[in-house]
Amino acid sequence: MRKRSRNHESIMKIAVIGLGRAGLPLAGLIADNGFKVIGVDVDERRCGDINSGKNPIPEERGLDKLLEDHGGKNLFATMNYEDAEECNVYIVIVPLFTDKNKNPDFRILEDAFRSIGKILKKCDLVVLETSVPPMTTELSVREWLEEESGLKLGEFYLAYSPERIMTGYSVSRLKEFPKIVGGVDKESGLNALEVYRNFVPNLHLVSSARVAEFIKLIEGCYRDVNIALANELFKIANELEIEFYEAREYANHEYCHIHLPSTGVGGHCIPVYPWFLIKEMEKRGKIGCVRLMRAARELNDEMVDYWAERIVMDCVKIDKRLNEVKICIKGITFREGVKELYNSRNLALARLLMKKGLNVYVYDELLSKDEIETRGLKWIEAKDADIVFDAFELKFGGWNERGG
Amino acid sequence: MRKRSRNHESIMKIAVIGLGRAGLPLAGLIADNGFKVIGVDVDERRCGDINSGKNPIPEERGLDKLLEDHGGKNLFATMNYEDAEECNVYIVIVPLFTDKNKNPDFRILEDAFRSIGKILKKCDLVVLETSVPPMTTELSVREWLEEESGLKLGEFYLAYSPERIMTGYSVSRLKEFPKIVGGVDKESGLNALEVYRNFVPNLHLVSSARVAEFIKLIEGCYRDVNIALANELFKIANELEIEFYEAREYANHEYCHIHLPSTGVGGHCIPVYPWFLIKEMEKRGKIGCVRLMRAARELNDEMVDYWAERIVMDCVKIDKRLNEVKICIKGITFREGVKELYNSRNLALARLLMKKGLNVYVYDELLSKDEIETRGLKWIEAKDADIVFDAFELKFGGWNERGG
Repeated sequence: MRKRSRNHESIMKIAVIGLGRAGLPLAGLIADNGFKVIGVDVDERRCGDINSGKNPIPEERGLDKLLEDHGGKNLFATMNYEDAEECNVYIVIVPLFTDKNKNPDFRILEDAFRSIGKILKKCDLVVLETSVPPMTTELSVREWLEEESGLKLGEFYLAYSPERIMTGYSVSRLKEFPKIVGGVDKESGLNALEVYRNFVPNLHLVSSARVAEFIKLIEGCYRDVNIALANELFKIANELEIEFYEAREYANHEYCHIHLPSTGVGGHCIPVYPWFLIKEMEKRGKIGCVRLMRAARELNDEMVDYWAERIVMDCVKIDKRLNEVKICIKGITFREGVKELYNSRNLALARLLMKKGLNVYVYDELLSKDEIETRGLKWIEAKDADIVFDAFELKFGGWNERGG
Repeated sequence: MRKRSRNHESIMKIAVIGLGRAGLPLAGLIADNGFKVIGVDVDERRCGDINSGKNPIPEERGLDKLLEDHGGKNLFATMNYEDAEECNVYIVIVPLFTDKNKNPDFRILEDAFRSIGKILKKCDLVVLETSVPPMTTELSVREWLEEESGLKLGEFYLAYSPERIMTGYSVSRLKEFPKIVGGVDKESGLNALEVYRNFVPNLHLVSSARVAEFIKLIEGCYRDVNIALANELFKIANELEIEFYEAREYANHEYCHIHLPSTGVGGHCIPVYPWFLIKEMEKRGKIGCVRLMRAARELNDEMVDYWAERIVMDCVKIDKRLNEVKICIKGITFREGVKELYNSRNLALARLLMKKGLNVYVYDELLSKDEIETRGLKWIEAKDADIVFDAFELKFGGWNERGG
């Protein structure tokens, strides 16, 4: 790891826009490397927590310590971009959502960059870390910044460096995992590389922001397609009365990485990135170019139908009217151990069964009875249900069969 | 590695049916472990070569030595099953082809097992190694053996153990790579495990022949789908003017294994196995269960159309009438360094361009001018062509541009 120079330390002041699961660990880590960090976030309570050294994302390993050490000191959180006007580096990690047609909704991103544009000064560096459709940085972001600042690219620097965190392990990821940087022009790339070197040890400069954007998306596409393949093979194995997990165990080796089957793919990332490429290709009339990714997306999304059918068929074993069978979906958070419901396919499964008129309950270790009921769901302890579907293990069991 | 017992050595005599790329290295390895092996093959010349210690597959590393040491001695090759009638273990690795509708053509397999059935004795063990559709061993193979031998399963043992060779490296694969064994019944599995232990060090017993068959197929499906994904991403990158190989280099890490793009998938294995599952599911009316694999298959097969179009567009640079441009397809063998044309997609590409009326030539380091011309193709040295398409590198180049 190349250590920051005294020189940098004295002049660099870094703003991190967006203090969520990706932004906050990065902001903490930069502060931990001796830099003054201004964090900007729309959530007033979160800013207050951070400034009093309290970690708003407790499941993020190592973040407690970073915030305890730097919150309200080296790392100051604020809702006002004006507080960041003395910064010379702006790193943006705000969410990019998609609308109901799977098109990206750039409003949050645009707002962040236009706000930065208003305080942007000559020689400042702006880096986007949010995963975005290809060419967002060189086209939209550049335009937003130029329009608001009155500066032209070349007077400021613009680069892209995808966050590659894994929720729960973001701090160690930043310290260990290879990170990519690509500039909108050559100077921007070199500039971003020089800055990030101060707090990211495993850093690689690629030839452009566009390549860096693409790298992040195709990682997600690899995952999505391979989860779809696992789901397809799982269904085939079930039809052939083969124990899928046994087959998977022995099929996987150095050259074979069959993923785990699931109820689909949840969260902000993997189910969204393929759409960025699919929609871009569709815009260009190249529908044939994204057939596989589209098939994978559909297949993963339709896994809730597959599981709903299997759960209904499992009700046959219970000596009750179908709509009286107490069905418990165990585990609705997005991944085991991560308290996040965005795009939860297990939640979608519960709602689908409810829509079919079944008597559906939910249990999740990370959610209280209250937290479940405020979402319009019924809470139950697994032992009181007739059928328990363990949404992470993909296993059925009445409580008694499972032996308590 | 558990060493064979003296006891086994004295009583075990093993027949290997099919002395091709998979069978011959196995037969050699068994002989090298001190067992008497009878190899059965339909190719008289090949049998003669083997018995005189000559290696008919020179590119197979380590096979020269095995045949020099054991050919005609511990390993005796023959066309007659009668010569194997004193064997008590029969291992079958004959090819299974598919017809033009992608259905398996079992004739060679059936013939082999019916021939074994005629000489099968009580307590003999039969093992299939050819990759087959699920349940082939427990249904078809069992039936063929029982019909011809008059014995019932239980009086003989039947198992499945997929070959997992990689052409060119089969001998070392057998010595190092995990090998799977699964029995049609419990006794058969244990029996096969005990036998294979004598010459395969890294051996695992799975719960059934069916699971073992499935394991081999899903490895191939993983490869096929991931090659299709690489091809799809390659096309997208090209559309977006992104250097795919740069993106791939940085996208790949511990959790991401994006494959290499290509002109499709050739050979006997990967392009065939998905069809075994697709056809089986179609027979069961479960078409929706194989959508992803089917999309992948189509995508890979259609890569020749994609490349044909790009090659035609590359001809624009040449100041000649389109049908006079000398196009050289460089590399038509199935994989670099393996002299095998079965299912070669690069050959398919050459033929497709010829059909379009273009002036197509072929060059391949492993094939002489004669070997190319007897296939109805025109031979050229790359330096004499106007456009060279390197089918392994997926790169274009007029000879002059490439600097000779």
